[in-house]
Amino acid sequence: MKATLMFGAGDVRVVDVPDAKIKAPTDAVVRVVRACICGSDLHPFHSKPAGNVGQAMGHEAIGVVEEIGSEVSRIAKGDFVIVPFGLEDNACVFCREGVHTSCVHGSFLSGAQAEAVRVSQADGSLVTVPGVGEDADEALLASLLTLSDVYLTGWHAAHMGRVRPGKTVTVIGDGAVGLSAVLSARQMGAERIILMGRHQVRTDLGLEWGATDVVAERGDEGVARVMELTGGEGSHVVLEAVGHMPAYEQAYRVVRPGGVISRVGVPQYQDAPIGFASLFGKNVTLTGGPAPVRAYIDAALPGVLEGRIAPGRVFDRTVGLEGVPGGYAAMDAREVLKVMVDPSL
Amino acid sequence: MKATLMFGAGDVRVVDVPDAKIKAPTDAVVRVVRACICGSDLHPFHSKPAGNVGQAMGHEAIGVVEEIGSEVSRIAKGDFVIVPFGLEDNACVFCREGVHTSCVHGSFLSGAQAEAVRVSQADGSLVTVPGVGEDADEALLASLLTLSDVYLTGWHAAHMGRVRPGKTVTVIGDGAVGLSAVLSARQMGAERIILMGRHQVRTDLGLEWGATDVVAERGDEGVARVMELTGGEGSHVVLEAVGHMPAYEQAYRVVRPGGVISRVGVPQYQDAPIGFASLFGKNVTLTGGPAPVRAYIDAALPGVLEGRIAPGRVFDRTVGLEGVPGGYAAMDAREVLKVMVDPSL
Repeated sequence: MKATLMFGAGDVRVVDVPDAKIKAPTDAVVRVVRACICGSDLHPFHSKPAGNVGQAMGHEAIGVVEEIGSEVSRIAKGDFVIVPFGLEDNACVFCREGVHTSCVHGSFLSGAQAEAVRVSQADGSLVTVPGVGEDADEALLASLLTLSDVYLTGWHAAHMGRVRPGKTVTVIGDGAVGLSAVLSARQMGAERIILMGRHQVRTDLGLEWGATDVVAERGDEGVARVMELTGGEGSHVVLEAVGHMPAYEQAYRVVRPGGVISRVGVPQYQDAPIGFASLFGKNVTLTGGPAPVRAYIDAALPGVLEGRIAPGRVFDRTVGLEGVPGGYAAMDAREVLKVMVDPSL
Repeated sequence: MKATLMFGAGDVRVVDVPDAKIKAPTDAVVRVVRACICGSDLHPFHSKPAGNVGQAMGHEAIGVVEEIGSEVSRIAKGDFVIVPFGLEDNACVFCREGVHTSCVHGSFLSGAQAEAVRVSQADGSLVTVPGVGEDADEALLASLLTLSDVYLTGWHAAHMGRVRPGKTVTVIGDGAVGLSAVLSARQMGAERIILMGRHQVRTDLGLEWGATDVVAERGDEGVARVMELTGGEGSHVVLEAVGHMPAYEQAYRVVRPGGVISRVGVPQYQDAPIGFASLFGKNVTLTGGPAPVRAYIDAALPGVLEGRIAPGRVFDRTVGLEGVPGGYAAMDAREVLKVMVDPSL
């Protein structure tokens, strides 16, 4: 079958690999109906050392179950499913506490930018969508696909940030996760949502989804602008959807005393300021991490199926598998917001 | 009057200074009935560069109002009061949000290890204790004094850490704040409280106040012991009451996925690990800061007045003003847990 491998920074290839198959009795094989490229895929696209062994790419998918292991009972061949990027038994102590990404039998999906993908812990991980199939409306498929990662990662940011009615929320980053965080903050009743981003086509979608203000400035100017918009007080909640140090610095400079910074951009740093002058002195709470999307899918599904939200609008280009390497380059160049992959093309 | 000044590391002197007096119309002057030495006073005691200008020490006191400024209306001459270490108008936007230590008219008390002290924002800051005077029982005075900082700093740690019934809480540090955090976690219904400390007289008080386990080991061994005690899962909440980097490292290594680290030890570092391997990967929340004790005094007072709690037991030595320099040395040498100052001695 065809699959996407990354051999090093900038070196993404679609190659023939052995067909996905069951390895453990708790596995399933899912034929990929739609997959996509994640903002976090761009991190290795920038930094991965070159090598001879390719890394199987893609951790977001919807598809049809083709095969199940002998111990899989909740999922059946032919089911149309959402595959969360974090795989889990949905039963262990950490799953029960809502931290599915730390499941004791957990792992992360890989190899979804392909014709098919092996999913471990299929019973715990996969969410069936009854009444929907691969012939569904393209916009619905796109929105269902966002439940495997991007929209619910934005939701996780807002949830961990304890967004509530009346709160001012600043979202750092106008990528697909940042925009999803705007949508989620609006759903949670935020009074004011300041979106920090400079790509108008993106910030326009942010405004449509509930942002009340857009700040294009960065650094000192960006901080000054947010402080001005908040009457010098700062933002109750800051949702950081980038992962680079300048975004984190921006976050602690605009957060209000007693406020919350919630990070979902995968940090590209280890150490950062958390002393008296950054977090401690103003009693700032820092939270976030990889989104346990499995915890949120069931609650989000009706809104998508009934068309109340359309988080799939973050996709602005669809490619076949052969178009995946070009999709990475286009996302990296910010020509497109987020690329969907349809292996049938 | 006599007051305590610090001229450099290890150099604490009790000297004659001009009497405390009103400077702003919102000030009061409080004659100090009891003050004390704080664990955080030991940080400059270790590191302050030597100089000719002494720093007025002491930020915890109870006493009798001697004089009030022309705009003070809620407090009267002769009132017996608790002086919180953070002074505030108790009216601004941040005070209303419970972050009194970030009050827009706020400052920190200084100069309380003295015969008298000037208190700014007296109406907002001072809490009167009707029916109690300086002739009260010594144990009651000691417990009232802890409401100016130490006990409520421990309470703040547990409150921000969201301690709840059923939770496992690890307290790092067996100083007076750590022990106060144990007491607070017990009051909030924690199921298990693991106290990390190696001074038996202190950990014994911790056990009396509700600790269920004591871990004397540090570093890798300390981490291994907490993980063993929690069945390999880690602690839901970690209360960090030290402020040095090894305590922070200990905290993120023993906290459970989805757990909370709450810091009240003033961090003696600026940068620290917060990347994927420390906080982000396991969705750990980091919180805490200087305790807005004013927010908690009213609720804590009945328990102290009715004798349900006796947080004043952290004091194990009382000195007159002339004994303050020796008190610093004794706390630094860990001969005593916490020193109370009675200027009448």
